[in-house]
Amino acid sequence: MIPTLEWTSEGVRFLDQTRLPLEETYVLATTYEQVADVIVTMVVRGAPAIGVSAAMGVALGVERSKATTVEALEPEFQTICKTLAGTRPTAVNLFWAIRRMEDLFAELKAKPGMTVEAIREAITAEALKMYDEDIEACKTLGAHGADLLPKEGGVLTHCNAGALATCGYGTALGVIRAAVEQGSKIEVYADETRPFLQGARLTAWELMHDGIPTTVLCDNMAASLMRRGKIQAVVVGADRIAANGDVANKIGTYGVAVLAKEHGIPFYVAAPWSTIDLETAHGDDIPIEERAAVEVTHHAGKQLTPHNVGIVNPAFDVTPAKYVTAIITERGVLRAPYEESLAGLETAKA
Amino acid sequence: MIPTLEWTSEGVRFLDQTRLPLEETYVLATTYEQVADVIVTMVVRGAPAIGVSAAMGVALGVERSKATTVEALEPEFQTICKTLAGTRPTAVNLFWAIRRMEDLFAELKAKPGMTVEAIREAITAEALKMYDEDIEACKTLGAHGADLLPKEGGVLTHCNAGALATCGYGTALGVIRAAVEQGSKIEVYADETRPFLQGARLTAWELMHDGIPTTVLCDNMAASLMRRGKIQAVVVGADRIAANGDVANKIGTYGVAVLAKEHGIPFYVAAPWSTIDLETAHGDDIPIEERAAVEVTHHAGKQLTPHNVGIVNPAFDVTPAKYVTAIITERGVLRAPYEESLAGLETAKA
Repeated sequence: MIPTLEWTSEGVRFLDQTRLPLEETYVLATTYEQVADVIVTMVVRGAPAIGVSAAMGVALGVERSKATTVEALEPEFQTICKTLAGTRPTAVNLFWAIRRMEDLFAELKAKPGMTVEAIREAITAEALKMYDEDIEACKTLGAHGADLLPKEGGVLTHCNAGALATCGYGTALGVIRAAVEQGSKIEVYADETRPFLQGARLTAWELMHDGIPTTVLCDNMAASLMRRGKIQAVVVGADRIAANGDVANKIGTYGVAVLAKEHGIPFYVAAPWSTIDLETAHGDDIPIEERAAVEVTHHAGKQLTPHNVGIVNPAFDVTPAKYVTAIITERGVLRAPYEESLAGLETAKA
Repeated sequence: MIPTLEWTSEGVRFLDQTRLPLEETYVLATTYEQVADVIVTMVVRGAPAIGVSAAMGVALGVERSKATTVEALEPEFQTICKTLAGTRPTAVNLFWAIRRMEDLFAELKAKPGMTVEAIREAITAEALKMYDEDIEACKTLGAHGADLLPKEGGVLTHCNAGALATCGYGTALGVIRAAVEQGSKIEVYADETRPFLQGARLTAWELMHDGIPTTVLCDNMAASLMRRGKIQAVVVGADRIAANGDVANKIGTYGVAVLAKEHGIPFYVAAPWSTIDLETAHGDDIPIEERAAVEVTHHAGKQLTPHNVGIVNPAFDVTPAKYVTAIITERGVLRAPYEESLAGLETAKA
């Protein structure tokens, strides 16, 4: 399995996604601040992976704390959570994971005779559980979605919603992996996904690792491939799904969804339940991270644009629910109206 | 004025568009083979500029010929034309320019007592005339189209249909320049246009040169900007327009057209009449150049993708006429049905 992130006795070990596909190197985070940095700099990225990374960051912070009493640990715990929550604003999995840690901490703290050592053990165990749950969720949603893909044909994906965006297996790529395991003959078309090139670098790398036929295209070529009949389905991941079914995902997803609709191609979103944010009513309420201009203006240290030109660099966009054919989760495949189908599965288990 | 290409006593001088925006260097082609090479390697690009470059290449070849009789010159002339015609397949201006030279050669040859020297002079004069006509056509079509743009707002363009794609002033950017000269407050949004980055490098460079406010975006950000109300009109150039109004242009244009339609934004195509190919009935009959994978896999010498991954790299796509709000030419602004409006202006003069 691709070792996207791992809890080790020395700290949290991350496969450095900024250096793929040509270099397979690792970053070891030994403090929670280093985990925060690894999230900000996109050494690790992808909503589910960010969530579990944050949980491990909390566990690491608590493990390394010098506090000897629960009272002394509490403000430190709050600082750890606040630091990790401040890394990236769009993926709701980050806040979901931190809230789960906060809820656990509150529960433990309330128990009579609770010790720092017992809290340490419980928090770390919870982070490891979230890691296992993430892989399990991906495999289950993959199995749920596999039948939606064509038995033979082209499937377009945008960005990387793969093993590298999760603890393993992937969401959108999990659906593709499950379909391939069931015998479907799928050719994956991977949008390169400017500016960070997650498609060209990461999706291509992990699918080739698994021997799944993959073709990389520039983002602006997808429309032409659809018109030429090369694409039978689109499947992407998500960073946050609002209660009405609107989907925030990597910049460019919305354009792909519009093009899919225009060509009569189904557009699927695959995500674990931790990506669903029923507290956000509408996609336009989801905060969209604007990243540094240098990601657009430079590549490999070389400047592409003239000095001082204006730059926009929103990291995500929102695809209104009306473009989404189905949302594939570990709790089942949801269809419109999403207000109802999402609310209906809120209390369900995978 | 931006010196895209110039006839000089030493040969044809080209502004090297592969090195913009950071380096303003020139390539001097002293043989017709060098002109062909400059077209293939995209030192010069853009349909109108390619057409005039080819005409100058023919003139250069004829000037440098050692033939002393018209009979000896003729097979050489044919080789020159064939070499230049073999450079790039999609822009019809290339074939239009060469045919104009062939027609002139045939006419001259038929004249009694014609000399090689007289042919040389006439061919060179014709190339220089085409250069002047191109600038004139851009200015005229710019004036025709200026009123179509908003008095204030965002105008999206894709690739570079500017001074750098013509002998000066530009087609799509000519319309924008004319609107700005008339006092419109336009903010240009320039798609970076992967893989060759004509928007990020060339459009941004020449608009900043003219002091027109410009913001560069990755191609996959256009949909989001449209949804957020930032774009009031789209204007692009063309490499070939079929008799039914279908438009071949830089890869990604079709996607932008679909997005514009979905958002109720007008989509304009600006091109000189030499881009219109009434002999090609339908857009799907236009040959689409597939360029080398290395343009997608590498940037600035650095490999972006894993070894041996599949790559597609079509240089152009076809936008069906139904997405085109109007075609702006030096002969006037054309509307659907394009079969009629194009045929109706066929014999008109600018």
